[in-house]
Amino acid sequence: MTGNASFFTQAEPIRYEGRDSRNPLAFRWYDKNRVVLGKTMEEQLRFAIAYWHSLAWPGGDPFGGETFQRPWMHGSDDMALARHKAEVGFDLFRLLDVPFFCFHDRDVAPEGATLAESNRNLDVIADIFAEKMATDKVKVLWGTANLFSNRRFMAGAATNPDPDVFIYAAGQVKHAMDVTKRLDGANYVLWGGREGYETLLNTDLRQETEQLGRFVSMVVDYKHKIGFKGAILVEPKPQEPTKHQYDYDVATVYGFLKRFGLEKEVQVNIEDNHATLAGHTYEHEIATAVALGIMGSLDVNRGDRQSGWDTDQFPNEPTGMALGFYHLLKGGGFKTGGCNFDAKIRRQSLEADDLLIGHVGGMDVCARALLMAAEMIEDGVLPQFVADRYSGWQTPDNQAILKGERSLEDLAKVVDQKGINPMPRSGRQEYLENLVNRYL
Amino acid sequence: MTGNASFFTQAEPIRYEGRDSRNPLAFRWYDKNRVVLGKTMEEQLRFAIAYWHSLAWPGGDPFGGETFQRPWMHGSDDMALARHKAEVGFDLFRLLDVPFFCFHDRDVAPEGATLAESNRNLDVIADIFAEKMATDKVKVLWGTANLFSNRRFMAGAATNPDPDVFIYAAGQVKHAMDVTKRLDGANYVLWGGREGYETLLNTDLRQETEQLGRFVSMVVDYKHKIGFKGAILVEPKPQEPTKHQYDYDVATVYGFLKRFGLEKEVQVNIEDNHATLAGHTYEHEIATAVALGIMGSLDVNRGDRQSGWDTDQFPNEPTGMALGFYHLLKGGGFKTGGCNFDAKIRRQSLEADDLLIGHVGGMDVCARALLMAAEMIEDGVLPQFVADRYSGWQTPDNQAILKGERSLEDLAKVVDQKGINPMPRSGRQEYLENLVNRYL
Amino acid sequence: MTGNASFFTQAEPIRYEGRDSRNPLAFRWYDKNRVVLGKTMEEQLRFAIAYWHSLAWPGGDPFGGETFQRPWMHGSDDMALARHKAEVGFDLFRLLDVPFFCFHDRDVAPEGATLAESNRNLDVIADIFAEKMATDKVKVLWGTANLFSNRRFMAGAATNPDPDVFIYAAGQVKHAMDVTKRLDGANYVLWGGREGYETLLNTDLRQETEQLGRFVSMVVDYKHKIGFKGAILVEPKPQEPTKHQYDYDVATVYGFLKRFGLEKEVQVNIEDNHATLAGHTYEHEIATAVALGIMGSLDVNRGDRQSGWDTDQFPNEPTGMALGFYHLLKGGGFKTGGCNFDAKIRRQSLEADDLLIGHVGGMDVCARALLMAAEMIEDGVLPQFVADRYSGWQTPDNQAILKGERSLEDLAKVVDQKGINPMPRSGRQEYLENLVNRYL
Amino acid sequence: MTGNASFFTQAEPIRYEGRDSRNPLAFRWYDKNRVVLGKTMEEQLRFAIAYWHSLAWPGGDPFGGETFQRPWMHGSDDMALARHKAEVGFDLFRLLDVPFFCFHDRDVAPEGATLAESNRNLDVIADIFAEKMATDKVKVLWGTANLFSNRRFMAGAATNPDPDVFIYAAGQVKHAMDVTKRLDGANYVLWGGREGYETLLNTDLRQETEQLGRFVSMVVDYKHKIGFKGAILVEPKPQEPTKHQYDYDVATVYGFLKRFGLEKEVQVNIEDNHATLAGHTYEHEIATAVALGIMGSLDVNRGDRQSGWDTDQFPNEPTGMALGFYHLLKGGGFKTGGCNFDAKIRRQSLEADDLLIGHVGGMDVCARALLMAAEMIEDGVLPQFVADRYSGWQTPDNQAILKGERSLEDLAKVVDQKGINPMPRSGRQEYLENLVNRYL
Ligand SMILES: [Co+2]
Ligand SMILES: [Co+2]
Ligand SMILES: [Co+2]
Ligand SMILES: [Co+2]
Ligand SMILES: [Co+2]
Ligand SMILES: [Co+2]
Ligand SMILES: [Co+2]
Ligand SMILES: [Co+2]
Repeated sequence: MTGNASFFTQAEPIRYEGRDSRNPLAFRWYDKNRVVLGKTMEEQLRFAIAYWHSLAWPGGDPFGGETFQRPWMHGSDDMALARHKAEVGFDLFRLLDVPFFCFHDRDVAPEGATLAESNRNLDVIADIFAEKMATDKVKVLWGTANLFSNRRFMAGAATNPDPDVFIYAAGQVKHAMDVTKRLDGANYVLWGGREGYETLLNTDLRQETEQLGRFVSMVVDYKHKIGFKGAILVEPKPQEPTKHQYDYDVATVYGFLKRFGLEKEVQVNIEDNHATLAGHTYEHEIATAVALGIMGSLDVNRGDRQSGWDTDQFPNEPTGMALGFYHLLKGGGFKTGGCNFDAKIRRQSLEADDLLIGHVGGMDVCARALLMAAEMIEDGVLPQFVADRYSGWQTPDNQAILKGERSLEDLAKVVDQKGINPMPRSGRQEYLENLVNRYL
Repeated sequence: MTGNASFFTQAEPIRYEGRDSRNPLAFRWYDKNRVVLGKTMEEQLRFAIAYWHSLAWPGGDPFGGETFQRPWMHGSDDMALARHKAEVGFDLFRLLDVPFFCFHDRDVAPEGATLAESNRNLDVIADIFAEKMATDKVKVLWGTANLFSNRRFMAGAATNPDPDVFIYAAGQVKHAMDVTKRLDGANYVLWGGREGYETLLNTDLRQETEQLGRFVSMVVDYKHKIGFKGAILVEPKPQEPTKHQYDYDVATVYGFLKRFGLEKEVQVNIEDNHATLAGHTYEHEIATAVALGIMGSLDVNRGDRQSGWDTDQFPNEPTGMALGFYHLLKGGGFKTGGCNFDAKIRRQSLEADDLLIGHVGGMDVCARALLMAAEMIEDGVLPQFVADRYSGWQTPDNQAILKGERSLEDLAKVVDQKGINPMPRSGRQEYLENLVNRYL
Repeated sequence: MTGNASFFTQAEPIRYEGRDSRNPLAFRWYDKNRVVLGKTMEEQLRFAIAYWHSLAWPGGDPFGGETFQRPWMHGSDDMALARHKAEVGFDLFRLLDVPFFCFHDRDVAPEGATLAESNRNLDVIADIFAEKMATDKVKVLWGTANLFSNRRFMAGAATNPDPDVFIYAAGQVKHAMDVTKRLDGANYVLWGGREGYETLLNTDLRQETEQLGRFVSMVVDYKHKIGFKGAILVEPKPQEPTKHQYDYDVATVYGFLKRFGLEKEVQVNIEDNHATLAGHTYEHEIATAVALGIMGSLDVNRGDRQSGWDTDQFPNEPTGMALGFYHLLKGGGFKTGGCNFDAKIRRQSLEADDLLIGHVGGMDVCARALLMAAEMIEDGVLPQFVADRYSGWQTPDNQAILKGERSLEDLAKVVDQKGINPMPRSGRQEYLENLVNRYL
Repeated sequence: MTGNASFFTQAEPIRYEGRDSRNPLAFRWYDKNRVVLGKTMEEQLRFAIAYWHSLAWPGGDPFGGETFQRPWMHGSDDMALARHKAEVGFDLFRLLDVPFFCFHDRDVAPEGATLAESNRNLDVIADIFAEKMATDKVKVLWGTANLFSNRRFMAGAATNPDPDVFIYAAGQVKHAMDVTKRLDGANYVLWGGREGYETLLNTDLRQETEQLGRFVSMVVDYKHKIGFKGAILVEPKPQEPTKHQYDYDVATVYGFLKRFGLEKEVQVNIEDNHATLAGHTYEHEIATAVALGIMGSLDVNRGDRQSGWDTDQFPNEPTGMALGFYHLLKGGGFKTGGCNFDAKIRRQSLEADDLLIGHVGGMDVCARALLMAAEMIEDGVLPQFVADRYSGWQTPDNQAILKGERSLEDLAKVVDQKGINPMPRSGRQEYLENLVNRYL
C-alpha cells in the first residue's frame, strides 16, 4: 500500500454485517462465503469493478466539466498518473473485496504518439497489474480496447469507411488481447462504441456490417491462435454514441453471428441499461441469450427510465435483477462471465466514500437478487407452473409436430377430424407476479 | 355496381390533376402512367388497400366504441353484411384506381361455429371476389389469416402453450393460403399478432420460438406443395398487442430466419409505424432488409411520434418515405411486394369522403417520395458520395482483408511498418441533408 | 347474497395471514387494523375498487375482443345485467374487505335513449347501491361521469367545438354529482378523457381551454350550491385516448387551475401510469402536488415501461410506491382521497380468482410501501439529511433573500465583498439510495 | 478582417440563388429582402447564430473528445484565444448575413479566478463586440449567463441548497444583464441548466422552486431598474443535464410564472428539440405559448427522434417548422424574439464549410417554412375551417355560457327542454393534412 491509497478513509475491506446493519460501509446481503445453489455467493456473482467509470471518469457531462478532481488526474507526467491510478484501483478492489476487475486499454495507460508507443505504455501498466495480481486475489474478468474515444474512430473502427482505421483498430485489438491473455483474463469483450451510423445518407450498411463480420472473425481466429481460453463477448447497445449501433440488442447480435457463422464462438455481454434503451428488459435480454445459447456475461447497472441516454447508474432494484438472474441460473449460471459494475457514481457524489458506497449498494442488490432467484428455483412453484403450461406438447403426436413430421394439411385434417376448438386457459399473470413478490 | 355502392358520393375514379389542383378528390402527384426509373408509377408503387382498416374497422378505440356506423356493419345476416362490404370495397378499389388489395380471412367473411364453417364462409366471399376480379383490374397483393382477434388466440397462435391452438392455426392458415392462391395473390403474409408474451413469468421463450420456427417452416413447405408462386412475408413489430413480439424488427426476424434456415424462403413486410415503435426509422428497416437480402413488401403508414401505440395513420411526410424508397429502389425495387396502406382514417373522420381523402393523401405522398427517390438516384450525387467514401476498400490489399486473407497479426504489423495513423475525414452530414432537401 | 354472487369460489373475506403465508388469497402485508403513523392501515390507505375495470371491462384490446365472458355481460335485459353486476361488485368489495369503491355513471347503469333515461337508469342502480351501503361497510371514494365513450364525445366534452356537447356534458355531470352526493361520496373526479386534441389543424387551443376552465368553474360552483363536502379532483394524463390531453400532468393542471383561479378549489387525482406516460415518476407527481398544495387522491396502478399506452396493471413494486407515499405522508396523508385501484387484470386472466388475486397483490404492495414510507419518516435519517442540506438558508441574511429583501445588485456586491466562491458538496445520491433499500 | 478569419474558404457573404441552385453555399429559399406577410424575410425570421455551438464547442461527446481542433481552442493565452474566436465569429455572422447572434457569458470570455475577474474578461470581449457591431450590421438577439458548466453549479444555481451559490449566480447574472444591455440585446434568456434535480431523495422541491421564483423576480426587477427594454425569456426543457428540470415545458413554465405573479413579465424561448423531449411537438409548444400569451422567441433546431438526448441538430424538415410558424404568425409574429440556431454540426463535420452549410440548410428550411405558413394564412382555408368548426359558440346563448352566466343546473335543464342529442361531425383530419401538404 502506498501513500496514494490514502484516497479512501476506509482502511479495511468492507464486511458483511447482516441485514440490520446501519453501517453504510458494510454489506447487508452480500455474504461472500454463503452458499447459494451449490456455490458461494462470490463464485455465483463473480463481481468486477470497471476501471473506466470508477478510476478514469472525472465527473463531466455534456453540459459541464470535471467535478471529482481526483489527484491522479492532475499532473504533467501521464505515466506517473497512470501508476497512481493503479494504486488507487487496487486499493478499491481490495476494499470492496471483489474477485475481478475490467479495463479498456486506454483506461489504464495513456495514449502515445503512435500505436507502438501506446502499446508500450500499456505494457508498463500491465507489468504493475501483474505484480499486484501476484499478491492480491483480484483477477481480470475481461479486457477490451477503446476504439471510440480518439477522433480517428469518430466514424467507426471496424466499420470505418477508411480501411486504415480498420487496420489500426486490428493492431490495437491484437495488443489488448495479448495483454488480456497475459493477465489471464476470463474473457475479452468487443463493445462497438462507434460501430453504427450517424446518418444512413453517408453509410453503406452492407459494406460496414461485412467489415464488422470480418473483424470479429479475425478476433476469434486470433483467440485460437494464441490459445486464449476466455470467451469472446460482444456487448449489445442500441444507440449512443452513434445514432444507431449495429449490435442493437441480443437478437440482432444473434442474427449477426449467424450471418458470419460465429454463433458458437461468440457470446454476449448484456448490460441492463442497454436493454432498457433498446426497448427491452434485462430479464428479456438474458432469457433471449440463454434461449439462443449465447449467454456470456453481465454488465450490472441501471438507466434512468425517464431519460433516453446511458446513465450507467448503480443498480438499486433487486426484483428486476432477480428475474434476470433466474434465467441465468436456469441456464447454468456464469461460466466465464460475471457481474461487472459498468456503473458510475453521480457527478455530484464527490466524496471518496461515495465510490465505495455506490459499489456496496450495487453488490447488495445483486446479492439480494441472487437469493431471490435461488429461492424461485428451489421453491419450484414458478418453474413448475411454466412446465405445466406447456405440458400438452409432450404427447407423441404433438412432439411429432415439433420434429417436423406434420404438414399444414395434416394438421388441417386433425382440426376437422377431432373437432378441435381450443378453450383458452388463464395466464395467471397476477398470481405469478404476487408469487415473485413473495421472494422479495 | 349495386345500390350499396352509393356509400361514396364520388362516382368516377379519382384522377391526376397536377400539382396545382385544389380538388381534394384528385391526385396532385400520383400520375399512374408517368414513367419513373423505367416503369410506370403504378408498376413501381403497386398500391394496395387494406380491407381491415378501410372496410372492417368501426372506429372504436380503448376508450370508446364505434363512431362510423357503416351500413354494412349493422344487420342480422352476417353473410349479407359481408357481401355488402365486398360491394363497397370493390367500389373503393375502383374509385382509388389501385391495382391491389390485401385482406385477412376474418375481414372478409364472418367466423363460423367451427373452422370448417368459417372456411365455407370465406369461400363464399372468395367466389364473389373472384367474380369481381374477373372484370375489375384489381388483384390481391397479399392474403393472411387473422390469428389474434378470437379469444382462442389470446396466448398466441403458433406460440401458444396449448398445442391444439397451434393445430387450429395451422388449419386456418392452410385455408387462407388456399384462398390466396386461388385469387392469384402476389404474396402471403404472416403477422405475429399474439406471437410474443405478456410476461416472461409464464413463458418458455425457447419452446415458443421453436414452435414458431416449425410453423413458418410448414407454411413454406405448403407453399411449395401447392405451387404458390408468391413470396412468404413476415411482418416485424416490436410490441402490441403483446408486451413483446417475437418478430421485433427486421434484424430480429433475420436472426430467426437464419436459426431455422428460412432466410432464402421468407422475406419481410416492413411497416413504417412498427419501425418507429421499435426505435428505428423506416429508412433503417428498409436498408437493413435490402442489405440482408430479405426485402419483400411495405406497409405504408405512419405513427404518431408522441404516442407509443400503433396509430396506423396515413403517411403524410414525403422525405422520410423517399429515403426508404431510395434504398428499396437501389435494391431493385419491388418484386412481388407493393405499398399496402395499413392505415386507417381517424375515428372522427366520419364522412365517406374522408376514406377516399385519406388514401388520396397517402398515395400522393408516396408518389412524391418516389419522384424524390428517383431523382436522388438519377442525379447520382448521393450514391456517388457514398461510393467515394468507401473507395479506399477497393485496393487489392484492402480487398484481401475483406476476403479473409489477413489476420490480426498481419494488420498489426502493417500499422507498425506503414506507420498508419488515420486522419479523420468529414462525414458531411449537413451537406447531405441539405442535398436531400433539394429533391423535395 | 344472491346466487349471482357465486361468481367467486371464495366465500369469506380475505384475511391477513402474515408474511410467510403461501395462500394466494390471503394478505401478507395488509393488516387493516395495524397502526401506522397513528392511524390504522385501513385509514391510511383508504383502498377503493374501480367499477369500470373490475366489473365492466370484458377483456378486449385493439386487436381482439372479449375474453372474460362474464355472466353479467350477456343477456337482453340491460338493467337486469346492471343489477347482476352490482351484486357481483358488492361481493367483490366484501371479499376484498375494502372501505371504498369508485364508479363512472355509465359503468353502473346502461345508457338510455336520452339523457333523462340514462339518468333514470343510474338512479335505479344508485338505489340498489344505497340499500347495500346501508348494511355493508363500503363507501364511495369518488364518482365521475363517463364523457368519452359515446361517439357524441369523440371530439371532446367540455372542449367540444359543438356547444351542444358542452351542454349535454354539463347535464350529465350535474346528475353524476347529484348521485355522488346522495351516496355520500368522498370526492368527485373529472378525468378529461377526450379533452385534448387529435390534431392542432382543426383545433382552437385557446377556445378549448377557455371552455374547459368554464366547465370546471361550473362544477365547483355546483358543488357549493348543493353542499357537497367532498373534494373536486382533476386527473392528469398526457395522452390517450387523444393525441394530447389538456390535463397533461400535475404541473400543467396547476397552471390551468391558476389561470382560472381554481387552485384552492380543485385538487389532483394522480395515477402512476399517467405519471410514467408523461415522462415523470409517481414520486415526482405526488411531490409536486404536495409542494403546490393540490394533492388530492391516488390512482394506484402501473404501466409497462416498455410500452407507450395505458396498461393499467396492478402495482407490483413497493419501493416506487413507498417513495410516493413518503411525500404524501410528509404532506399530511390523505384527507378526502384514497388509493383507488384503477387497474385491470390482464385479458388472459380468465378465472374469477384472478380478479381477487390482482387486488390482493396490489393491496399488499401498497401496504408494504406504507410501512416503508412510515419507517423512512420515523427513522428520520432521510428527512434530516434533506433539512441539513438546505440549512444554510436559515440564516437571517439568506432568509432576507427569500423574503424579497435583496436585489441582484445587493447580491452582486456580497459576492465581491465576501469573496464568495462556493465549494460544491456531495449530493450523496448512492448513500441515500442504499438507505431507501434498507427499508425494503 | 484579420488573418484569423481565413478559417473559412468562403470570402463573400452567402447569397440567395433560387430554388434550382446547386451551390451548397447559396440560399435556395432564404431571400432576405423578399416580403412575406408585410415584412421582409429577414425581419420575419430574425435569424441568430449561437456562439456556444458554432464557436465554443470542440466536437466532444460522452464517449469521445474533441474532433474539430479549431485554431482558437489551442493556445496558452486564453484572452488571445477569445479574441481569435470573436474574429471568426463575426466573420461567420458576416458570411451568413444574419442580423443577430446569441451568447452565454462564458462562451465569449474565459472564466477567471474570481467572479470579478470573469466579469473583467467578459468586459474586454464585450468591448470588441461593441466595436465590431458599430460597423457590422449584426446585433445581439439575446445574452445569457452560463450557470451550469462550472462545478460550483453542479447542484443548481438559483435552486442550489447552498445559498452562496444563489448569491454567486445573482452576481453573475447581474453582470451578464449589464453586458447584454450595453450591447443593446433584444432579450435576456434564463435557461435553467441545472435547475432541477438528480434525485428527489436529496431535494426539497418546494424550497427549490421558491428559490427559483425569487431569482426570476429579482431578474425582472433588475431589468426595470436598469431600463433594459428587451424581454426576459425562460427556456423550457424537460431534462438533461438534470434528471428532471423545473422548466419542463411551456405549460409548466406558465404555471410557475402564475405562481410567482410573473406571467406578464416573462415569456418563453421555445426549442424544438426540447419540445420533442418533453413529449410534445414544436407546433404544440408554440401554439400553447401563443394561447397563454407568453410567446417570446424560438430556438430552431431538431433532435433525433430515436434518441432521448438533446442532439441540437440543424432543422431539416420544413412542414413541422411551418406548423409552428403558422401559430407564431397568427399570434402576431416575433416582437423582440427571433430564430436562434441552437444547433451544432455533427462532430464528424470537420470542415470549415460544414459550419456554413449547416446554417445554410437550416436557414433555407426556416425560409421555406415561413413561405408555407404565410400561404396557409393568406390562402385562408385552414384558419376558416377552424373558425367554422367553433362557430356554434357565437350565439348569444352559448356566449353566455363562456361568460359565466350559466350554471350546471341551467344547462341540465336545457338538455331536457331542447332534447339536446348532439350528432358528431367529421374532424376532417386527413383533409386538413393533405391541405397542409399542398403548401409544401
Ligand atoms: Co456496458
Ligand atoms: Co451503458
Ligand atoms: Co402492418
Ligand atoms: Co401498425
Ligand atoms: Co386513473
Ligand atoms: Co390509466
Ligand atoms: Co436552446
Ligand atoms: Co437543446
